[in-house]
Parts: sequence; structure tokens; C-alpha cells
Amino acid sequence: MAKRKVGQQTIKLESAPYIISSYSIVGPKEGSGPLLKYFDSIVQDDYFGEESWEKAESKMMIEAIKYSIKNSNLGIENIDFLLAGDLLNQLISSNFAARALQIPFFGLYGACSTMAESLSLGSVLIDGGYADKVVCSTSSHFSSAERQYRSPLEQGGQRPLYSQWTVTGAGATVLSDIGEGPRITYITTGKVMDFGIKDANNMGAAMAPAAADTIIAHLNDTGRQATYYDLIITGDLAKVGMDITIELVKTKGYNIESVYNDCGSIIFDNKKQDTHSGGSGCGCSAVVLNGYLLKEMKKRTFNKILFVGTGALLSPISSFQGESIPCIAHAVSIENDLRV
Amino acid sequence: MAKRKVGQQTIKLESAPYIISSYSIVGPKEGSGPLLKYFDSIVQDDYFGEESWEKAESKMMIEAIKYSIKNSNLGIENIDFLLAGDLLNQLISSNFAARALQIPFFGLYGACSTMAESLSLGSVLIDGGYADKVVCSTSSHFSSAERQYRSPLEQGGQRPLYSQWTVTGAGATVLSDIGEGPRITYITTGKVMDFGIKDANNMGAAMAPAAADTIIAHLNDTGRQATYYDLIITGDLAKVGMDITIELVKTKGYNIESVYNDCGSIIFDNKKQDTHSGGSGCGCSAVVLNGYLLKEMKKRTFNKILFVGTGALLSPISSFQGESIPCIAHAVSIENDLRV
Repeated sequence: MAKRKVGQQTIKLESAPYIISSYSIVGPKEGSGPLLKYFDSIVQDDYFGEESWEKAESKMMIEAIKYSIKNSNLGIENIDFLLAGDLLNQLISSNFAARALQIPFFGLYGACSTMAESLSLGSVLIDGGYADKVVCSTSSHFSSAERQYRSPLEQGGQRPLYSQWTVTGAGATVLSDIGEGPRITYITTGKVMDFGIKDANNMGAAMAPAAADTIIAHLNDTGRQATYYDLIITGDLAKVGMDITIELVKTKGYNIESVYNDCGSIIFDNKKQDTHSGGSGCGCSAVVLNGYLLKEMKKRTFNKILFVGTGALLSPISSFQGESIPCIAHAVSIENDLRV
Repeated sequence: MAKRKVGQQTIKLESAPYIISSYSIVGPKEGSGPLLKYFDSIVQDDYFGEESWEKAESKMMIEAIKYSIKNSNLGIENIDFLLAGDLLNQLISSNFAARALQIPFFGLYGACSTMAESLSLGSVLIDGGYADKVVCSTSSHFSSAERQYRSPLEQGGQRPLYSQWTVTGAGATVLSDIGEGPRITYITTGKVMDFGIKDANNMGAAMAPAAADTIIAHLNDTGRQATYYDLIITGDLAKVGMDITIELVKTKGYNIESVYNDCGSIIFDNKKQDTHSGGSGCGCSAVVLNGYLLKEMKKRTFNKILFVGTGALLSPISSFQGESIPCIAHAVSIENDLRV
């Protein structure tokens, strides 16, 4: 087995790269939800001064990346690589952000798991000595996603109560070989799971098996119990998917219930904000991580987090062609006070 | 500077991972072109027994990955990671391939640069000791790409003579920490370049600045002359982009003309096959690399290749919104007879 692998799907990062900086920017709906005080910037107009939602989304990613770098007291020229992705076809938010920033760029796609995917590959680049500093970023936008994946907003279609609401926002994380901050200790890379769900509104149920599979793989590979973590947080299964994940993980002998939460379940007040089952989109786990979670880690509310990005890898075309929804989850272990 | 970096954009792979196996599968048009004898499999029906072109494309990728693993005398369970991407929205060819194969999976998107991107990150995973074996794969399909990016095939639209023809095919490469075969010695990761071209049929001209920028960065970072290589091969600029690349590289004092070629320029007989400026698509550089180039390296026709994947990172939406075409290129140095 490869010397830095632990078990079948997990990599141990011996040097435990530091998260030295992060930044989150959200739209008005997210900025009036329960996590509002954690976001670094709240945009009041979801066009963000641009002519289209797609351009607004890209601008949000650019802002998140720029300010995450600025907050780390580095310049853009100090960043070795940018790893980024988003939900838009051909990753246009990320591509145009990479054009604006001129950082050597790896484009990634893992749907809503992309934040965890970018942290996974970014921390490997640092840990292996291939980079000193990388930025990881993802974004999503309710209005650009809705018209791409579902139907024109002007149509005013009804959405089922188990559907999720795509978050408008972007998050960015700066990883470093040296410095201060929480550290990335393990990554667990997911396999694609598909239990046959075909309803593209029911993402939570579709993604739960992937989330459960990766959580189980992580615990098996590292020999840790679920309660080693102060928090195991998926992003984004919302209410429906959370319950299924707890049950699926239980079948393999692990009980995560007491430490488990989900980014999509905490970003909105679902009843007051009419967001049905909860939040979703690359931007959801990105802003919950870079807003809420990392700030609470700094305050030591949480010292050990397993951040599990979950993505539904369908496209409208695959659904039209009768396919079920393939899903993936990637886990990233983030820890304070590491004894190396 | 990070200990394994050389210059601003280049990583030196000390252990020089081995390419122990490769596989290429193509459609009927590619299989009657000048490289026909190099392809491992030629499919006579571009539906490949499936109900849609998208499903056929995914099946091609599955076949390429399966047989590349089989040819290396490994089992699927021996592969640590699959790194793959394609041109379809949300990478459905790759996602469904990853579902079928159950290998831990990183989804990547770099348009037609994705084969080089997957080799870049795959060789980092091996070199750093994070994996012993990885598979890198990409695919494209003329008919699935045409209706996604341009217009329904049934419309029979005319294409300008400087346009390119998307290759139907998939390629897969198995990288290993030990073994025999050509080795990956350096990777140079590109920045997004955009010289303002807005004509989505003129990909070669749009991508040339990115290709030139990465080739120049690679030569600057490594201190090599262009003629160190037996072949510098971009994929896929075709005729128009090649000429521009030669000129742009010349402005920085490097003359690549005597060793330069392009995957899109050699896969078709453009006059006889009515493919205008040449081939394109993720599958083009994938099948030219995994078919022609690696087989000729085995025969020692070439001993040192700089493989430069070039991608146009536009989407139909970004073009409709008046944006120009952001492009990227990643370079991978592949060498026989390495003196370490």
C-alpha cells in the first residue's frame, strides 16, 4: 500500500497543512438566515452589479479568493495553485475567476462535494511539498443553478417540500505549509454511489448513501470512533438526507447521531425562509465551512471536525435519459491543537 | 519556494511515475483516419449499442479504463484513484464511469486539457506516496458535444472551415510507482489566458495563447530548450492554432517549429474526411496520447515528449452573454530512458 495511505480510501497528511485564512460571501437570503453574523460579506443585490446571475456568481468567487488571500497577508503572486469548481456547465464561474486572478489553476467538478474535493487535492499539494500556498474555492447561485438545472425562474414553478434551495455564495480557503490555524490531517476520497433515486428534487435521499459510505470508510480506515469528532458535518443533505445517513451509518456499527449535523440544515431557517428541506449547492458547504465552522474552530467551540462534502453528479440530460442519480462524498478531517 | 517546485508553474516529480499501461477506443471516423492502426479498439457504431450518444461516450470511457487496467495485469481493486473528466455538462461520462467502476474518484474539468490535468494530478498522487496506482481518463463524442455546444445534428448546420471536429473516443492511462514504461518527469500547470476571441468556432486561435504561455513557462522553469524534446505536441489546436502558437512562442526567444505537432492536426485526414481545421475534444488528445504517442515511445520513435493539453473553458451560456473564451493549457513531460 502507498506509504501515505491508511486503509482503502484515506490519505494521512503527515505535515497537516494549515488553514491560515478563509472568506465567505453570500447573497441577501443567506445573509438574513441564522448564520448571518458569520459571513464576511453579504451582498444585498444578487446580481452583484453584473448583467447576469452567472457573472455575479463568478464575481463572488473572485471576491472570496481575493479577500481570503488578503486576510492571510499574502499577495496573489504567493499562491502556487488555485483549485476551484462550481455547478455551472463547464465551470464558468471558476474559469472566469481563474482568468481574473492569473494563478495556475486546476478545475474540479464534484457538484456540491467540490469544496471538500478542492481541500483534498489542495492539502495533498501542500503536504507533498508541491506547493507552499494554495487557495481552494467553490461557488453557487440560486438563480443561475435554478435555470440551468430546473426551469426558468419566471415560470414560477412549485417545488416539492423535500427539495433543497441552492445557496447563493462563494467561499475560499487558503492552505499553507506553515502558519497558524486548524490543520487538515486526513482526507477520505469517495466512490460514486447510486441507490437508484431518479427524482432530481430529492437530492438528500440520493446523496445519503454516498455520505454514509465515505463516513464509514473514514472511520474504518482511521480506526476512529464517530465521537472522536466534535462534529461530523455533511454538505448538503438537508433534513431528508440526514436521517437516512444516520440510519445507513448505523448498519455498519457506528452511531454518529450525537455529533452529526449538515451544512444544508443550518444555513436557512427553513420554515421562515421557505427553503423546504434546506440549503444545497457548492456554495452552501463553502460558506458554512469558511464562515461558520472555521470561525467556531478559532473560538474552540469545535476542535475536531469531519467535513464531508456531498455531491449529486447528475445532469438534466442524464435525468431526461432516464438515469438515476450518481452521488459522491469526500471527507476532510480538520483539527485544532494537533499533537504531531 | 515549495521543495518540489521548479520555477513558478512547474513541479519536478523526483520519482518519475511510470506509465505502465494505456488504452484507446475510438469511433468509426477516427478509426478510418491516418492513426487507425494505433487504436486498441475501433467501434463501428457510434451509439456503441446504447440508446444515446451520451451513454455511448460513458461506455467508451468504461471500456478504456477497464482494458487499461487489464493490460497492466492489475485488478480494479488495485487502483487507488481514478482521475477523469469529459466535455459533457456535469461530467456525466466520467461520473457514470466512476459509478460502474467503484474506484475512489476525483472529477476534473479542463475542457480539452483534461487528459493533461488528470496526468498532472495523478502523477503528483503517485510521486508523493499517496497512491501506488492511478488511472487517468477522458472522453468525448462528436454527436454528444455537437448538440450540447452548438446545435442539433438534425439541423445540418454549416460549419466554418476554421472549425474543428470533436473526436469520438476515450483514452486511459495507468500510472504506477514501479514498473516499466515511459515516465512522467515534470508537470507545468497553466494559467487561464484570454486574448479576446469570441467566435466559439475558432477554438484554435483562442487556445493558442494558453498553449504558448504554458510551453514558455515550462521551458523557462526547467531551463530546457525546445529541442530537448523529440516532440512538443499540443492537443488540440489544429492548423490555425498551431501557426499562432509557433509565432507566440517565438516572441519569447524559443523556436519550437522543428519539434512541434498537434494531436488535432494528425488524427484526421482533414481534406478527405471533411474535418476542416482538425480534431478537438477531450478524447482527441486522450486517444492520440494513449494510442499513437505512447506506442511510438515504446518503439523509441520518440524518447522525450512534452504533451500539452489545451482547453477552451467557455460554455454556450458564457458565449451568449457576450464573453470571450478563457483558455488553459497544462504540460506533462514524458520521457524514456531516464537517468535519475
